[in-house]
Amino acid sequence: MARKFQSSKFYGVCLLVSVALNLYFFINLHLIRGKWNNYDQLSWSQKAAAEAEAVAAVSCSGHGRAYLDGLFVDGKPSCECNSCFGGPDCSQFSPDCVADADGGDPLFLEPFWMQHAASSALVVAGWHRMSYVFENNSYISHELEKHIRKLHSIAKNAATSGKYIVFGAGSTQLLNAAVYALSPQNSSSPAKVVASIPYYPIYETQTGFFNSVNFEFEGDASLWKNSTSDSSINVIEFVTAPNNPDGKLNKPTLQGPSVKTIHDLAYFWPHFTAIPAPADEDLMIFTISKLTGHAGSRFGWAVVKDEAVYQRIVWYMTLSEMGVSRDAQLRALKLLKVVLEEGEGNEIFEFAYQTMRKRWERLSWVISMSNRFSIQEIPPQFCTFFQKVRGPSPEIPVRILHISKQLYLWNAAYAWLKCEWEEDKDCSAVLRGANILSRNGSMFAAGNRYVRLSLIRTDDDFEFLLHRMNNLVSDKDGSKTM
Amino acid sequence: MARKFQSSKFYGVCLLVSVALNLYFFINLHLIRGKWNNYDQLSWSQKAAAEAEAVAAVSCSGHGRAYLDGLFVDGKPSCECNSCFGGPDCSQFSPDCVADADGGDPLFLEPFWMQHAASSALVVAGWHRMSYVFENNSYISHELEKHIRKLHSIAKNAATSGKYIVFGAGSTQLLNAAVYALSPQNSSSPAKVVASIPYYPIYETQTGFFNSVNFEFEGDASLWKNSTSDSSINVIEFVTAPNNPDGKLNKPTLQGPSVKTIHDLAYFWPHFTAIPAPADEDLMIFTISKLTGHAGSRFGWAVVKDEAVYQRIVWYMTLSEMGVSRDAQLRALKLLKVVLEEGEGNEIFEFAYQTMRKRWERLSWVISMSNRFSIQEIPPQFCTFFQKVRGPSPEIPVRILHISKQLYLWNAAYAWLKCEWEEDKDCSAVLRGANILSRNGSMFAAGNRYVRLSLIRTDDDFEFLLHRMNNLVSDKDGSKTM
Repeated sequence: MARKFQSSKFYGVCLLVSVALNLYFFINLHLIRGKWNNYDQLSWSQKAAAEAEAVAAVSCSGHGRAYLDGLFVDGKPSCECNSCFGGPDCSQFSPDCVADADGGDPLFLEPFWMQHAASSALVVAGWHRMSYVFENNSYISHELEKHIRKLHSIAKNAATSGKYIVFGAGSTQLLNAAVYALSPQNSSSPAKVVASIPYYPIYETQTGFFNSVNFEFEGDASLWKNSTSDSSINVIEFVTAPNNPDGKLNKPTLQGPSVKTIHDLAYFWPHFTAIPAPADEDLMIFTISKLTGHAGSRFGWAVVKDEAVYQRIVWYMTLSEMGVSRDAQLRALKLLKVVLEEGEGNEIFEFAYQTMRKRWERLSWVISMSNRFSIQEIPPQFCTFFQKVRGPSPEIPVRILHISKQLYLWNAAYAWLKCEWEEDKDCSAVLRGANILSRNGSMFAAGNRYVRLSLIRTDDDFEFLLHRMNNLVSDKDGSKTM
Repeated sequence: MARKFQSSKFYGVCLLVSVALNLYFFINLHLIRGKWNNYDQLSWSQKAAAEAEAVAAVSCSGHGRAYLDGLFVDGKPSCECNSCFGGPDCSQFSPDCVADADGGDPLFLEPFWMQHAASSALVVAGWHRMSYVFENNSYISHELEKHIRKLHSIAKNAATSGKYIVFGAGSTQLLNAAVYALSPQNSSSPAKVVASIPYYPIYETQTGFFNSVNFEFEGDASLWKNSTSDSSINVIEFVTAPNNPDGKLNKPTLQGPSVKTIHDLAYFWPHFTAIPAPADEDLMIFTISKLTGHAGSRFGWAVVKDEAVYQRIVWYMTLSEMGVSRDAQLRALKLLKVVLEEGEGNEIFEFAYQTMRKRWERLSWVISMSNRFSIQEIPPQFCTFFQKVRGPSPEIPVRILHISKQLYLWNAAYAWLKCEWEEDKDCSAVLRGANILSRNGSMFAAGNRYVRLSLIRTDDDFEFLLHRMNNLVSDKDGSKTM
């Protein structure tokens, strides 16, 4: 009987343990896993999700990242390091490397997207949009177009109502498409394509390369001021606001019956400039590169008033590539959704603005230590997006007020630097001597005394630039001699 | 004691049930869920995965599909229906609608990708490839290039060793890039761009639209046979194999010191033609559209022998759009991985070949009922990929051997149909009268007696075409009068 009792007690204990185990399994299976909710039922997307997360989980010491389409070594994704870093996990620093302030790679926005990993992730099914056309027989996602219009109304930077929208592979392609669309077809003389100095070099190289019978590049817009009353001379002016390289809100130089204008508004977003009012021009070009930082996606759009011009840009896009990749359009849609959903644009614009602002504050500080360099002046203006004046005077931090020299507290994408010393005739060579890679002013038709410094690259690139500039102005040749 | 015994028995039963439950939970948690393995730990990709799977799960009655970037009604993705179907779930059939055999939308491959949902799914992180350039400072994914080379060696359709590869937004863009690259820069007269009739219309419209000082379209290649000894006349010949529209493996018409050739090999894959030997030409253009069916991704590539020509195409891609969208490149890489992994290409080529073959068999049968129409002849050839002769004679199914008329058992992408009756001068009008949309032969510079019928569209489109063709040849005017 004692054995029976013991056995009964034994069963009891076992039962208790078993019930406890059941409870554990139940909680684990239905409550903890249950938080994934319908994710439990996910099937075909899981393998790809695991792949992407494994790549994202690779540690590159904060100085690089691994990509799904990068090199895999022994089945493991490998790091692609920022400039000046190397080694398998990007932890090896090369102190003597060049500080790269050359290209306009907008990677200052990368941290924003890493912080918004879940909302910006995208799953593409193998059979997504295989057709040449969308349902309305066009090359353009109607949903994406709707989001673009909404974005402009929120950013208050463009009036799109009553205008057409057409997509291109970045603003690069649309610049050329616009030139084709605005050039007269059967004129005996080609349209003159012009821009204000300093101007974005692509205007010239692109027009030259395509070498059309319909147009030719003529450089400085101001030289054509007296010719615009002659209606037989067709002129196409690029007006860039904010201007690349100097960040100024350019206005058209030319007006007249045969003058057409292409407004390149790639940088006309609240993080790079005050937005005084929505742009309301006949032909405006935007790009996602300088909005969300996704230069690699090659996605831009034109907002066009005139139907015939719009149709010619559509025709250009058809004949050059049958519309923008649906994959790029899908990606752009996802990114714009995040921009619109996170504080109605406030979050990304604030993030980007603050990043630019801090970079300018620090660069200003360094430049102000010497009279060797000067930087462009941008007048303060009221920004309708941030609802305050954006410019130098009202925002100089107290702690640097004791510096007598003007500080350059803009948020422009580039510093347009001038070498002020008589002997520094080749400014980019001066910087190269200090191990800084800049873009020569002569590329912008502005001469060698100027260089463009890119301030929108990775944090690493900016830190090296600052460090090298600091060395440059601190050494005996560059030190303050005011 | 009896009670004790009973209680012990009760415990025993409870324990048994509990242990069974434990077992159930254990299996469920660690074996069934366990197969997801590390998927359990997925985090940021889950929301996007759930979104994509919800869209894919929308039922469109097999006559349409929903897309992630399609219209959402009341928060639910809506169906986009195949031609002739409508309603919220694409179940409403419009019996009088037009059978569309016009465009070359390669949706016959859509079912293949739906069958390979898991391996072809792609997860894109928000910060994927934001930069303008890849690590090697180029616009081209090295991994993708490697996969393309491997694909050609498996499909046995092109020799890529010792040649350069450059990407474009579909073959469309590369055709134009190649014309620019091969045109002399400083010649007093533009290069003459020619092709064999019938030719793909884009060659002419594209060259005309871009209207470069460097080249002009001159049409029929054969007219220039006597001029090619004159080295001052630069000629660029498009050689299309298989030809669009007629599927023939064209060879160059012209040869000479100033003749350059662009080999448009968009359809040179085992599912559209016998592959007699790998193409080994100086400039060959391919596209993913006609390989995997992803026309919407706008991705193509050129295989180029000469470095200077390659560099000029790279320069064209730089100035026109700074390289192909990284999103399109990532997608192409994923798709090519599936092609290569699933039976080393055998699976997709076999699927596509069988689909085309069956379509040709059925169309042949219908056309053979009448002498009103004839279809192009394609001589049988040995295919090195499938390791057998591909062409009409050896493969006529026994059940249709009693038909005296030649059957057209190719696998070309298009039927190149000729209206044989004297009165049917406008063949596309004849078909339009029977509610069939075809592409007029005059668009291919071949006159109105010819039309191109697309056989690579959806199953629905093909079924309607067949049905309407059947009606056409069965009515009193179209019936057999041989």
